[in-house]
Amino acid sequence: MEIAAERTGEFDVLGIGNAIVDVVAYAEDALLAELGLVKGAMTLVDEERCEFLYRRMGPAHEVSGGSCANTMAALASLGGRAAYIGRVKQDQLGEVFGHDIRAAGVTFRSPPSPDGPSTARCLVFVTPDAQRTMATYLGACVELAPEDIDPELVRAASITYLEGYLWDRPEAKAACRKAADVCHAAGRRLALTLSDPFCVDRWREEFRELVAREVDILFANEAEITSLYEVADFDAALQEVRRHVHFAVLTRGAKGSVVVCGEELHVIDAVPPERLLDTTGAGDLYAAGFLRGFTAGLDLGACGRLGSLCAAEIIAQYGARAERPLRPLFARVNGEAAHS
Amino acid sequence: MEIAAERTGEFDVLGIGNAIVDVVAYAEDALLAELGLVKGAMTLVDEERCEFLYRRMGPAHEVSGGSCANTMAALASLGGRAAYIGRVKQDQLGEVFGHDIRAAGVTFRSPPSPDGPSTARCLVFVTPDAQRTMATYLGACVELAPEDIDPELVRAASITYLEGYLWDRPEAKAACRKAADVCHAAGRRLALTLSDPFCVDRWREEFRELVAREVDILFANEAEITSLYEVADFDAALQEVRRHVHFAVLTRGAKGSVVVCGEELHVIDAVPPERLLDTTGAGDLYAAGFLRGFTAGLDLGACGRLGSLCAAEIIAQYGARAERPLRPLFARVNGEAAHS
Repeated sequence: MEIAAERTGEFDVLGIGNAIVDVVAYAEDALLAELGLVKGAMTLVDEERCEFLYRRMGPAHEVSGGSCANTMAALASLGGRAAYIGRVKQDQLGEVFGHDIRAAGVTFRSPPSPDGPSTARCLVFVTPDAQRTMATYLGACVELAPEDIDPELVRAASITYLEGYLWDRPEAKAACRKAADVCHAAGRRLALTLSDPFCVDRWREEFRELVAREVDILFANEAEITSLYEVADFDAALQEVRRHVHFAVLTRGAKGSVVVCGEELHVIDAVPPERLLDTTGAGDLYAAGFLRGFTAGLDLGACGRLGSLCAAEIIAQYGARAERPLRPLFARVNGEAAHS
Repeated sequence: MEIAAERTGEFDVLGIGNAIVDVVAYAEDALLAELGLVKGAMTLVDEERCEFLYRRMGPAHEVSGGSCANTMAALASLGGRAAYIGRVKQDQLGEVFGHDIRAAGVTFRSPPSPDGPSTARCLVFVTPDAQRTMATYLGACVELAPEDIDPELVRAASITYLEGYLWDRPEAKAACRKAADVCHAAGRRLALTLSDPFCVDRWREEFRELVAREVDILFANEAEITSLYEVADFDAALQEVRRHVHFAVLTRGAKGSVVVCGEELHVIDAVPPERLLDTTGAGDLYAAGFLRGFTAGLDLGACGRLGSLCAAEIIAQYGARAERPLRPLFARVNGEAAHS
């Protein structure tokens, strides 16, 4: 297979994303309706709106988040070598973010902003059906710019993994373009996650071009990939993907996932969770499991299975950072692969 | 029974305690040994030591804590009318604490300190056996003083509930004495939780005197009550309790709990949790359930059962604030009581 992983870099994956602390609370559906929040979506809000929503939110807990950062933290917890670039402010929540990602074993050298907006927060409302609805105040993330991209770090990673959410800020997008250029010039691979169907809606044309021309590995869920190609269902999206994308990993919630690479197609079952509490982070953790398996040289089916196991682990708890170490999951899939 | 609850105050319970944000992380036993932490205990640390320990701690999540505040938040989540007095600083973690306790439905009017030490943090290391080991930096809690005790609030509550941890600071202790005086003068009831066996060790004589003379309802676990009377086992402690304490609620982990009121004695089974993840908050939530039942006029057996249900709920998750509303538990016990 043309896209075979090479474990040659100092890092398996470098992630670039919005550095966010999640504020997670249980909420009834009625509250979402009252607050005018679009269920299941991520909405960008300004500081004032964020404060208003926070006042209406139930008792919460704080946990480091950010889609790409979640993936990097999980990758490290699985034993992978991960690095991360993202911006926080020098405040208590910024310290929390920096502590958590480093404590997970991720290399994180981005200096916190000494002034400007506070560390980004994402209010996550978890409804009884385990769905999550998010309102994000980007705060210090808006300071992420091309000069934050250390070319050495990009060259040192086998894969550079970008989150689609970065397209929402022109400076962050420019940072991604710089990272993509360095990545390709160094013969490394570029991965992208589409992040959110509404984000795809905002940047459809740019994403289509990027995916067709520059992205080596695309991660998307069903809603995102159908939005990208403006098609009615997953099967139609799959035909578009096969035509336009070199290599794609498509997640479908309880319906499992599909890995597409040219003529090769793998259908992978979802793993039922111990209990279903909060779907936040399911996609982020799936990507982590997949990337860990991929950079360790596992076959694509095993990569998908590790992704599914990681997703099952995270939806059995609140929040998108695993409360328990994930390394046993890698050992399990690696063991299965060795015995098959 | 002499101690029957009266639901006459504006509040069922006013809690006074150290206002703390918990930083909760999974840890292997080897890490505790390496850091010289006494497993299962709460150790007070200064800011520098706290920072050192935090750097060594794994990826964490933040959740409002403080033993007494946990009890008040749970009491409100059960539908009880709760108020709380405690000190935070005007910083991000102070905002988090204030948000969470108010969002739980607890009346909390203590103004945050504009300067001085930062909001208190308790590093909670949760080992694979679900035990927790705590290191607390008291920070802004040291500012709690008699002037923080609003006599109107004390008079407005049927029960004033103090945590033993407050005895570690002379000013906080003086605040408790003031609250106790107002409480008794108003014909209200005073409750105390002994908090921690090491705390009992530090203040044994004062606690014995307080318990014998001023406390109407004592909450303690097995380790605390045997430490208070310096006896070898629970049965010996029980004999001391019957002699010296008017009314006591004694928890014994998986062995359940015992309520002692003069000649009356109730033995209550523990409720097995859905899963056992983290014992943090088991005692705090038991007390909440008990107090909710008690101030609603349930019989002592039902009060204990509600306590056990709340404890089972909290040990199935990380941290001491319930992720889901507790009101259904009260409805359940209330329904059982109505049908028995």
